[in-house]
Amino acid sequence: MSDDTKTSQQLWTGRFTEATDRFVEAFTASEHFDRRLYRQDIRGSIAHARMLTACGVLTEAERDAIVRGLGEIQAEIEQGAFEWSPALEDVHMNIEKRLTDRIGDAGKKLHTGRSRNDQVATDIRLYLREAIVEIRAELLRFQQGLVDLADREADTIMPGFTHLQVAQPVSFGHHMLAWYEMLVRDQGRFEDCAARLNVMPLGSAALAGTSFPIDRAMTCAELGFDRPSDNSLDAVSDRDFAMEFAAASSILLTHLSRMAEEMILWASPMFDFIDLPDRFCTGSSIMPQKKNPDVAEIVRGKTARVHGHLVGLLTLMKGQPLAYNRDNQEDKEPLFDTVDTVRDCLRAFADMVPAIHTRPESMKAAARKGFATATDLADYLVRKGVPFRDAHAIVGAAVRHGVETGRDLADMELETLRGFSNTIEADVFEVLTLEGSLAARDHHGGTAPNQVRQQVQKARKRLAETPAEGRS
Amino acid sequence: MSDDTKTSQQLWTGRFTEATDRFVEAFTASEHFDRRLYRQDIRGSIAHARMLTACGVLTEAERDAIVRGLGEIQAEIEQGAFEWSPALEDVHMNIEKRLTDRIGDAGKKLHTGRSRNDQVATDIRLYLREAIVEIRAELLRFQQGLVDLADREADTIMPGFTHLQVAQPVSFGHHMLAWYEMLVRDQGRFEDCAARLNVMPLGSAALAGTSFPIDRAMTCAELGFDRPSDNSLDAVSDRDFAMEFAAASSILLTHLSRMAEEMILWASPMFDFIDLPDRFCTGSSIMPQKKNPDVAEIVRGKTARVHGHLVGLLTLMKGQPLAYNRDNQEDKEPLFDTVDTVRDCLRAFADMVPAIHTRPESMKAAARKGFATATDLADYLVRKGVPFRDAHAIVGAAVRHGVETGRDLADMELETLRGFSNTIEADVFEVLTLEGSLAARDHHGGTAPNQVRQQVQKARKRLAETPAEGRS
Amino acid sequence: MSDDTKTSQQLWTGRFTEATDRFVEAFTASEHFDRRLYRQDIRGSIAHARMLTACGVLTEAERDAIVRGLGEIQAEIEQGAFEWSPALEDVHMNIEKRLTDRIGDAGKKLHTGRSRNDQVATDIRLYLREAIVEIRAELLRFQQGLVDLADREADTIMPGFTHLQVAQPVSFGHHMLAWYEMLVRDQGRFEDCAARLNVMPLGSAALAGTSFPIDRAMTCAELGFDRPSDNSLDAVSDRDFAMEFAAASSILLTHLSRMAEEMILWASPMFDFIDLPDRFCTGSSIMPQKKNPDVAEIVRGKTARVHGHLVGLLTLMKGQPLAYNRDNQEDKEPLFDTVDTVRDCLRAFADMVPAIHTRPESMKAAARKGFATATDLADYLVRKGVPFRDAHAIVGAAVRHGVETGRDLADMELETLRGFSNTIEADVFEVLTLEGSLAARDHHGGTAPNQVRQQVQKARKRLAETPAEGRS
Amino acid sequence: MSDDTKTSQQLWTGRFTEATDRFVEAFTASEHFDRRLYRQDIRGSIAHARMLTACGVLTEAERDAIVRGLGEIQAEIEQGAFEWSPALEDVHMNIEKRLTDRIGDAGKKLHTGRSRNDQVATDIRLYLREAIVEIRAELLRFQQGLVDLADREADTIMPGFTHLQVAQPVSFGHHMLAWYEMLVRDQGRFEDCAARLNVMPLGSAALAGTSFPIDRAMTCAELGFDRPSDNSLDAVSDRDFAMEFAAASSILLTHLSRMAEEMILWASPMFDFIDLPDRFCTGSSIMPQKKNPDVAEIVRGKTARVHGHLVGLLTLMKGQPLAYNRDNQEDKEPLFDTVDTVRDCLRAFADMVPAIHTRPESMKAAARKGFATATDLADYLVRKGVPFRDAHAIVGAAVRHGVETGRDLADMELETLRGFSNTIEADVFEVLTLEGSLAARDHHGGTAPNQVRQQVQKARKRLAETPAEGRS
Repeated sequence: MSDDTKTSQQLWTGRFTEATDRFVEAFTASEHFDRRLYRQDIRGSIAHARMLTACGVLTEAERDAIVRGLGEIQAEIEQGAFEWSPALEDVHMNIEKRLTDRIGDAGKKLHTGRSRNDQVATDIRLYLREAIVEIRAELLRFQQGLVDLADREADTIMPGFTHLQVAQPVSFGHHMLAWYEMLVRDQGRFEDCAARLNVMPLGSAALAGTSFPIDRAMTCAELGFDRPSDNSLDAVSDRDFAMEFAAASSILLTHLSRMAEEMILWASPMFDFIDLPDRFCTGSSIMPQKKNPDVAEIVRGKTARVHGHLVGLLTLMKGQPLAYNRDNQEDKEPLFDTVDTVRDCLRAFADMVPAIHTRPESMKAAARKGFATATDLADYLVRKGVPFRDAHAIVGAAVRHGVETGRDLADMELETLRGFSNTIEADVFEVLTLEGSLAARDHHGGTAPNQVRQQVQKARKRLAETPAEGRS
Repeated sequence: MSDDTKTSQQLWTGRFTEATDRFVEAFTASEHFDRRLYRQDIRGSIAHARMLTACGVLTEAERDAIVRGLGEIQAEIEQGAFEWSPALEDVHMNIEKRLTDRIGDAGKKLHTGRSRNDQVATDIRLYLREAIVEIRAELLRFQQGLVDLADREADTIMPGFTHLQVAQPVSFGHHMLAWYEMLVRDQGRFEDCAARLNVMPLGSAALAGTSFPIDRAMTCAELGFDRPSDNSLDAVSDRDFAMEFAAASSILLTHLSRMAEEMILWASPMFDFIDLPDRFCTGSSIMPQKKNPDVAEIVRGKTARVHGHLVGLLTLMKGQPLAYNRDNQEDKEPLFDTVDTVRDCLRAFADMVPAIHTRPESMKAAARKGFATATDLADYLVRKGVPFRDAHAIVGAAVRHGVETGRDLADMELETLRGFSNTIEADVFEVLTLEGSLAARDHHGGTAPNQVRQQVQKARKRLAETPAEGRS
Repeated sequence: MSDDTKTSQQLWTGRFTEATDRFVEAFTASEHFDRRLYRQDIRGSIAHARMLTACGVLTEAERDAIVRGLGEIQAEIEQGAFEWSPALEDVHMNIEKRLTDRIGDAGKKLHTGRSRNDQVATDIRLYLREAIVEIRAELLRFQQGLVDLADREADTIMPGFTHLQVAQPVSFGHHMLAWYEMLVRDQGRFEDCAARLNVMPLGSAALAGTSFPIDRAMTCAELGFDRPSDNSLDAVSDRDFAMEFAAASSILLTHLSRMAEEMILWASPMFDFIDLPDRFCTGSSIMPQKKNPDVAEIVRGKTARVHGHLVGLLTLMKGQPLAYNRDNQEDKEPLFDTVDTVRDCLRAFADMVPAIHTRPESMKAAARKGFATATDLADYLVRKGVPFRDAHAIVGAAVRHGVETGRDLADMELETLRGFSNTIEADVFEVLTLEGSLAARDHHGGTAPNQVRQQVQKARKRLAETPAEGRS
Repeated sequence: MSDDTKTSQQLWTGRFTEATDRFVEAFTASEHFDRRLYRQDIRGSIAHARMLTACGVLTEAERDAIVRGLGEIQAEIEQGAFEWSPALEDVHMNIEKRLTDRIGDAGKKLHTGRSRNDQVATDIRLYLREAIVEIRAELLRFQQGLVDLADREADTIMPGFTHLQVAQPVSFGHHMLAWYEMLVRDQGRFEDCAARLNVMPLGSAALAGTSFPIDRAMTCAELGFDRPSDNSLDAVSDRDFAMEFAAASSILLTHLSRMAEEMILWASPMFDFIDLPDRFCTGSSIMPQKKNPDVAEIVRGKTARVHGHLVGLLTLMKGQPLAYNRDNQEDKEPLFDTVDTVRDCLRAFADMVPAIHTRPESMKAAARKGFATATDLADYLVRKGVPFRDAHAIVGAAVRHGVETGRDLADMELETLRGFSNTIEADVFEVLTLEGSLAARDHHGGTAPNQVRQQVQKARKRLAETPAEGRS
């Protein structure tokens, strides 16, 4: 394309005396990534045209030409027939120019009473609103999978860890419900974010509103927003939704990274607690025996990516004076990539995690290694009247003996145990079993299988009440 | 203190064969910062003791000794008479040890059925709940100040900027309401965060619950939580509240940094839009003429600090296996500093911003410099039947002429203007005034002084309905 | 492609009992971004094949087939004729499979004695080494432009700012050299980074080295590395070069963002210090008068993106156990995008900044507004024997008087000035001029035009000595 | 203190008409953290006073009074007798005011020809230069400990992991040298950072230099800087040293976090590869059996803190116009905390890591679990003429058989192995032993004990050549 051609393409060249530098044109263009918004852009333009008509700014014939023309352009784009041009800067100008090429003067009237500043802010909100619906659906599916797994494995005993040292026996199902709980909070954060973003900037024009007699309530209703924005300056400069979405995503990914870490540990031969189906693993180019938990590793890795995007978005907005600055163009790539990453990671885990195959014998053997019932012995002493702090010291001494002689507490003879406290009697061995320890934690939130099943019921009820569809 | 003394101080030494290394003791201790939680720790312990008594684990006499002893310890701390010891690691152990020193065996029984893992998680939630109440109160005060300022300056005309180029005239009051709107969303985020954090971990013990017959509903009611946590593993390993609070704070500070940037610009002699009272400024050690907008600069700077804390917290949690790891001790310093920073920055702006003195003449002069009513001319042409895109090109040419001849559009003669489009008639000069431009944007969210006043009323109503007190 | 086909494509399926899940295949594939490394991958493979031949592992015929085959594949890729397959996971497997398809069994022997772990580490280092050469060349070009601009504008007086308040007059050329100095440090950091990364991982195989009698010195020499890595575990797990490069880039972009901020301010009508050529600016879709400094804004915005990538890379590596984990696949996209962003931003500024048109009258007028020579008056008093701290107070009082009466110090009458200190005499007016103030700062590093020109000479000498080509 | 008192305390009040607001005074004060720079501040002031005397600005008597006065103030501070005042803002003003109180008018002359802007920039550089010397010394000590440990454990066989799956046997000493290699690069980065920061800002005054005839070469020599800065604007606004130091620290801590992760894994009963001395571990308040690797966990956690500080510093500087802005005051707390954290973490590991007690039997047993010698079998086949890719497939099938039958390759009978490839002969069992596998990787960088010992020698030589002392 020659410079002449280009000059005639750009839609704001009136006051300029030379054409845009070629490299600058490419450097500042956004159409290669913001074209993703074409559907929202067209939807917004149609609503805008209808409103302008209702307000007497456009004729019905102009509106019809615009609506039809935009519909055809959407089809062109979806068929891959649309020619995108970086010289036209962005998705908005590409579509507007094509519209004018198709329908003539009516196309030149579409931009009346609006600006790219309110247009893009509207487009992104529409886009993100839909994206959150999809994300919440995958989140829900993952939650359902975890609850089913928890139900199935409520009686499976594994060693619970603190500091990666064996702490106390817990139900594997209980552990899956801990993951589920994280996701409950994530659902809440995305729900809150979606509610806060569903406010319509359209009508704010460049920054101050417009001198045309627009009807924002009409576009608001047509586009499904809760209300029009109350302040035009804020509406075009606000990117809170992007920051808040990236923050909610960063916390979600942090959760997924913790699950990933645990699955990687559990799938290691050092733990051997679970087996992942081959279809979720890959091999090594050099070591023929390898079966690697790649999906979990990649999710853990992608957490970093999303944290990075959050930082990028916060840094982007920091210190910007109102109203719109071109810096804001840089909000889209991190936002889009966050959407894709969150959705894909959720899908990967929603598919894989419920297919986990547990190795109960291996978990039990591990729980027996680390004096997992030492706290139960201390509690036993307390119930016999020993102050907890003294009981803790008595059991500590018994464990030291166990470490030195290589024996678990349950394997010591009664006389040996009584050497540490003669309060200990024969009934002690009941509390030293893994099953006894687990069953004893039978209160709200505790790991007793009985409690796990109650939480499963509660979760199922809650998930069933979660609306399946969103607002878009 | 000798190593012997130290050994006897630590409360978990049963299984250990050598004393903690001195440097390690200092390196791992947290009492120098977590002592800030003493009030919450004591409040939680009292609730725990009462519950243990109701459940038959403690006698009433033991409970009374504990409650009295903890009350005395709180008084000691508040009088500065408490001796904190890093050898006792943290606030919990410092207080428990002192309690046992004062009341004997009953003190050793207090830790029955709980762990530091659920204890600290409870303490921080109590602390943060109170902190958010204070923060929201400062936020409210700042919002009120902005609304009053907006009301006072609804008719003051300033140039609105995009890309820091003069765009269109706006009301200074409108601009203040844009700031107010940002804070509305911040209020919402802190409210959501507070609701999500108000869940009680106590009773989760180390990670699995406890074998004692505890009554979590009782402690929950006493401590003002909405409900006890549903999963013990999650409850001790969850730090979402810290990440979410830091995220809400980072977005809030990003807003404050934008306001700061604008005040710094406006106070510069290059803009000269506002004057800040001397009491909010400081001088230079070398340049006698300087009067610097330090408060705004420091708030802008502190934004970076809070972003850093958010990154620290997210990075801290990333990839941690359940349940508790010692890494988590590192959550407190960034959290505490975020609380302090947010509160102080809000206080500083709530004090200073309403005291801004505007310079309307200076603003008007600036608005006249940048062809601020060019869009109004384009809109004028559209109303006369010119398609917007053509009108834009016509005005662009007129502006180019203005740049070359050094004249604003309003200063050109009618004939000159008609040289660009003979659609232009004598009535054009009405739309080219700043006042006319402002008044024309008279729709919901627009900058017309009339609209600004309506938004002021709406904001006042909303603020009046915001509850002044919180839950603590 | 059917699953059967796919299974036969993957090169590590021996121990697997089911094919990879389709979504997992796409989720874990990296070929869509790591194909960028094809040239480095082929170069490394050729060096490896020659070395294996020299060591007797391959025959000369096999080597020749491999070298020829890889050359043909490179041509295919560069002609766009290569069919990339996500089922083959990455650039390495795509190329190896194609090679075997072309040349048969010799292709299957290429992977002897290496692993993708050392292969990819080698590829990225080769890639980044070249990228740094390009970046340093753009940096150099930008430095040269700044030095020329500084030379041209050494005598141009502008107000220097601190806290965005007028501080003291400075030379515009001096300001450009401040920018130049930042870039000198950036050059140093990239140079150090390039030196540290030029170590060859190849031969480390999966993590432990190989059982074949390889000659690492030979591949090292062929690939232009300074030395082979000393430890195989470290070599395959090290991503320091990516973190260090991203850190150097983040600091560089922080510099560019500061320059961007200043250009945006200076191009604002509020400052009106500079004019940017139209070809580096763009317009508004709604406001016909707008000419926006988009390039500077986008560079300021892209700073956020690079900071985000740095965080992503640091977070990615944090807490990873050795040796290789699949998380590391996530290093490439942030690294590649950082390379592109840094190079493009430098190019944009190297093109634009030297084309800045200054407005000396506007700058001078601004300097006269803010009591810019107050420090000169204090210094004058000091030279007359007044202690500096007292002189500062005297001038402060004079400025207060000036603020109240709207007069600069230079505009006050001698008697008025003597009212603040009778040490002041008629010669005071010499030090109160902008030119006098500037000329007085005539020491190493000071802003006197004379000093600026000396620094220009020094910089030119230094730049001339910078090697034009790099190591690749 | 009354406002009157305060007003008289501040040293720049001439032009101000009201006293600083009390909260603002506290909010903007920095003396509570920058007092840490008192030694550097005094050292810089003494050098400045001597230089002013040499240049004829101060008399010898004044200089002597200043030098003596500052010495006495230093003693006061170190004895805890100095009264710090937030009303005096910072360390500089606190010391200057005290000096004037002690020695009268000479004190008021000290600030001639400088500003707090160049003063603080000089102080921090002096401070950080010393801090890096200390950090490098701890780093060196840690490296020495690792090399000794590597030497001691060169023959200890452990399973090397990729994806946390057993990969190939490696020498534990080799693994320790991988850690050592990371630290070699860290040493390089701190060395480069120290070289780049050793440039003297003093003499740049507020931003433009000074009108006094200063001799910067003289102060430069006295303060041990390599050269005076070349540009005054750059010198007062540059904080590269802080960002670069934080970046080097973030990479170092990322390394330490990886070591921490591995030690936590290895100390878990699931691995049981190492035992950490009790003095480096702590216990649980509830679980008497626990012995937690707290030091490693805290170092892993502190990594997040340092990453956060890096982000804080980069964000702080992003977009700041020159020259000095008050935001920069926020550079000190993250910088100081980074220095402390890095030094303490290094000290903790330099103490603890060499005291690791390995469990060779446990490691060997683990290596035998995961088909660690599968690659050796593939290499064996290659040496018998099978193309590597075919050999890989053959061994993959054998491993699948081993997984199904629960047997390692070394435990299969020859006939079974020959079922997968009749190229396999009786000599295969030599390559299937852990010892054989290890010994076979006998090339530069490989894990053969022989190579490990050579690298130990090389490292010892290198460490011996590292200068023990730094520049301060």
